[in-house]
Amino acid sequence: MFQDITTLLLDTKAFKDTIDLFVERYRDQNISVVASVEARGFIFGPPIALAIGAKFVPMRKPKKLPGEVISEEYSLEYGTDKIEMHVGAVQTGERALVIDDFIATGGTLCAAIKLLERVGVTVVECACVIELPELKGRAKLGGKPLFVLVEGGGA
Amino acid sequence: MFQDITTLLLDTKAFKDTIDLFVERYRDQNISVVASVEARGFIFGPPIALAIGAKFVPMRKPKKLPGEVISEEYSLEYGTDKIEMHVGAVQTGERALVIDDFIATGGTLCAAIKLLERVGVTVVECACVIELPELKGRAKLGGKPLFVLVEGGGA
Repeated sequence: MFQDITTLLLDTKAFKDTIDLFVERYRDQNISVVASVEARGFIFGPPIALAIGAKFVPMRKPKKLPGEVISEEYSLEYGTDKIEMHVGAVQTGERALVIDDFIATGGTLCAAIKLLERVGVTVVECACVIELPELKGRAKLGGKPLFVLVEGGGA
Repeated sequence: MFQDITTLLLDTKAFKDTIDLFVERYRDQNISVVASVEARGFIFGPPIALAIGAKFVPMRKPKKLPGEVISEEYSLEYGTDKIEMHVGAVQTGERALVIDDFIATGGTLCAAIKLLERVGVTVVECACVIELPELKGRAKLGGKPLFVLVEGGGA
């Protein structure tokens, strides 16, 4: 039962085992895109992308990406936020994996899926290190499969 | 001559070669800590940490880390900003590498070095993918070695 991935990052074997679990699951699934939302998603997406030979597509807060972007809004507890993706980063027909450290209410993951699907990319699965199941984020993903390593609680 | 690392991330071989160059340089240097500042630093630090068997220490903007932190201010073009590090993440006597995508004025790298040195960690070197030499960030690092892969220009 942990809810803070920074402690995982200090344990070199546990961090490596975590990445390896994802790599094992996705290496033979013909995935060419790994997408993650800043900032903590950036810790897990790139090592997985490198290991399975996919490109890494960063999704960022508004006005952080230098090229032409598409954006998607999502709800927070109070108000809304937005993430952006470079339009030229992916092509129609590619197969993508969305990686994040954590799924709580599911808002950012849902926005990430929408960004990819708007440009014709198939989201094969979403994967997180930790799920907080009582926040029911899984239900926000429109039936998209979600793979998680551990469940957290008490949030 | 490129200044946007997102294009590098789309080229699976170039991204892998980039990480491998850093790994080759640091794998036998008895480094136990790889530290990076959010958000783009998080893309390069973790794959290098995993490959050389070091822990990954994220440095974040204020109020993003859940545990007890120390913080360090740095100058921006207008005003100041601040980064934080978990106090328990590193121990006195450890040897660290600071990784970022980019060195421009050197403010964030300088703050990252100070955070580590305040808790008795030796910063072996700073490493970036791109340096903009005309901004003279290298001079801000207090003589600390800086390794870069490519020089950008025209900023």
